[in-house]
Amino acid sequence: MTTDYTVAGFDAAGIAAQIKKSGAPDLTLIASRTPCRAAATFTQNAFPAAPVLYDRQLLQINPEGIHGVIINSGCANACTGTEGDVNARRTAEAVEQALGASDHSIFVMSTGVIGVQLPMEKVLAGVPNAVKALSPEGWEAASRAIMTTDTRPKLFTRSVELGGQVVRFTGISKGAGMIHPNMATMLSTVVTDANIAQPLLQQALNYAVNKSYNRISVDGDTSTNDTVILLANGAAGNSEIADANSPAFAAFQSTLTAICTELAQAIVRDGEGATKFVTIQVNGARSDQDAHAAANTIATSPLVKTAFFGADANWGRFVAAAGRSGAHIEPARCSIFIAGGVKPGERGEELQLVEGGTPLNYSEATATAIFQQPEIDVRMELGLGSGTATVWTCDLSYEYVKINGDYRT
Amino acid sequence: MTTDYTVAGFDAAGIAAQIKKSGAPDLTLIASRTPCRAAATFTQNAFPAAPVLYDRQLLQINPEGIHGVIINSGCANACTGTEGDVNARRTAEAVEQALGASDHSIFVMSTGVIGVQLPMEKVLAGVPNAVKALSPEGWEAASRAIMTTDTRPKLFTRSVELGGQVVRFTGISKGAGMIHPNMATMLSTVVTDANIAQPLLQQALNYAVNKSYNRISVDGDTSTNDTVILLANGAAGNSEIADANSPAFAAFQSTLTAICTELAQAIVRDGEGATKFVTIQVNGARSDQDAHAAANTIATSPLVKTAFFGADANWGRFVAAAGRSGAHIEPARCSIFIAGGVKPGERGEELQLVEGGTPLNYSEATATAIFQQPEIDVRMELGLGSGTATVWTCDLSYEYVKINGDYRT
Repeated sequence: MTTDYTVAGFDAAGIAAQIKKSGAPDLTLIASRTPCRAAATFTQNAFPAAPVLYDRQLLQINPEGIHGVIINSGCANACTGTEGDVNARRTAEAVEQALGASDHSIFVMSTGVIGVQLPMEKVLAGVPNAVKALSPEGWEAASRAIMTTDTRPKLFTRSVELGGQVVRFTGISKGAGMIHPNMATMLSTVVTDANIAQPLLQQALNYAVNKSYNRISVDGDTSTNDTVILLANGAAGNSEIADANSPAFAAFQSTLTAICTELAQAIVRDGEGATKFVTIQVNGARSDQDAHAAANTIATSPLVKTAFFGADANWGRFVAAAGRSGAHIEPARCSIFIAGGVKPGERGEELQLVEGGTPLNYSEATATAIFQQPEIDVRMELGLGSGTATVWTCDLSYEYVKINGDYRT
Repeated sequence: MTTDYTVAGFDAAGIAAQIKKSGAPDLTLIASRTPCRAAATFTQNAFPAAPVLYDRQLLQINPEGIHGVIINSGCANACTGTEGDVNARRTAEAVEQALGASDHSIFVMSTGVIGVQLPMEKVLAGVPNAVKALSPEGWEAASRAIMTTDTRPKLFTRSVELGGQVVRFTGISKGAGMIHPNMATMLSTVVTDANIAQPLLQQALNYAVNKSYNRISVDGDTSTNDTVILLANGAAGNSEIADANSPAFAAFQSTLTAICTELAQAIVRDGEGATKFVTIQVNGARSDQDAHAAANTIATSPLVKTAFFGADANWGRFVAAAGRSGAHIEPARCSIFIAGGVKPGERGEELQLVEGGTPLNYSEATATAIFQQPEIDVRMELGLGSGTATVWTCDLSYEYVKINGDYRT
């Protein structure tokens, strides 16, 4: 039985436009037959790529009249100056024309090598083919054509009942960079047929991104192209969600957060060279910010990541990382627990390694057995308050070094 | 011709005390026949190891009556609770007794695995042997017994004329961690026979550390044991340096900075798995702080480090890293230059890759040839002000992953 990814009123396509030398699919189009309300979050990087600059402006101009998103892989259109800005605009305009859609209605995303101009002849030749390929069932093709070093497409769907109507969500993402999105790009688009006021759409997206995309490996490690776009066309026919305190908004936001979390975790699971999926949870911090700082520093430490790869339950590295995170810590109150699992969501028994800042007399063999599993949870309790944070990451392997040492050669 | 490392009034030794299972040397003693003025800088980590806590207090109690430093490798005495504190003190006291030195006159340093108690029988049995081995020529042995994953000892000497007297400096360091000091330890001890007031000794050390140890790979990535100690016994007979505005102090500080820079750079050159020595210089920033943030973020990015390993002049990664550093950047003012070299200090012609935020039409073959050299300089000009910073780092190799995935097994 194949999954139904369709969302009322949306079509998707993914085709090969020869932007990639390999001839692999490299042009994705997502389009709504009726105008959408849109929300988006963009990279905070000081070198935003041309499509990011274009989309930021578009969201200001026309947040309730968006018809879709065009995404190319194979070229990031970053550090491309004025020519890059013109090319982003020309790409959007070509899609608007081919779709017969209004002006200022198409977002643009790009992923690939930095500092190279988009091959516009190929892009412009590809656009009509992408429009022709549009179909309600086009999601798998769409999810494949945005891949770079990703080894598998990332495509999820969810539905929720809001006021008697079933509302659907479908989303795609790409990433594969382990430490921070590789070659400057973590991209994601989520569409929904929900009817929801635009400011609430942005509010729900901000919340969801903070709990999902910003919790993988490193938030703050933004890159030049990172973009998440959310489109809502209202085709589900639910009465408009217009109150941030309504149960319908809560259900919308929580479903959006769930699909964003699936999409974000899939990026980590497909991390470059990753052999382990690791969940770092810090509880008992003075504040959520402190907890996040500690969890994030642990999750991004190369010494911690290589220990996961080597199945070495070297908790001293967790402690050293948390200790330099800036989070308030009192060593004598700190405890550490680990657990392993074979499958997502399934976990074995927890093993406590540290109590009051010093090691317990645990079995090294048991600890190693846990670290040999493909899913590893680390829980650090700081014993100082109620601040909590969870971050997902992966290990640092030989393969990561190989992929990133050889990327362009 | 062998180098003369002697400094008037100082003796050094390095012996095997069986703290390391391998039987390799693991106990270093540095002692002055007369009391020294001391200065020190310690880790900012929230989990300071027992010897750090001990030394911090000792520096408060007796900054002008120090007789030496005892350093063990093979065990970090970190996350060891009250027992660890007692063991640090007992080690110092055993040395004081064996030397016939006054109370509160010996610093303690430890490096090795976290969370394991010091094997005190071995330490206490080793101390008299270390005292017996003390000699003015013992510096090479001393520099070897502090090594962990270091592949070679780090030992330098310098002299400078201050008011008609030649003043000498000798220092040792250990590190080898690439990203941040491995297994929680960058240690260094520098001794000098200069006669200098204690507050000025600390002032000069703070300055030197900020320009040297804090510029390798990552400052801020402090660990549980990081310590730099400077001892001055006054045996050179120069008239006391007591004025921070005097030429003598300037000469002292600059010579100290030079030897600390040699010791710090030697740590990077011996970085775990390192095949390249990389200098990242950022100029033209709004402030030195901005320049440092940008240089540091570039220097610690795994994507940048793997590109050095793969000899891939992938400047887009420098740009992406600088862009997320928090430094103020205007892409259109940014330029990037690279140069390579076969030996320390020798550099070939610079190649400009980026001008005004976009790539120049440079030769990819020339860029790759530069990145294939063992010494690489990257210079980023931000074009915004006079802020400048230099950071030294190394590449991220397969061997780094291997060393750190297998450390304890």
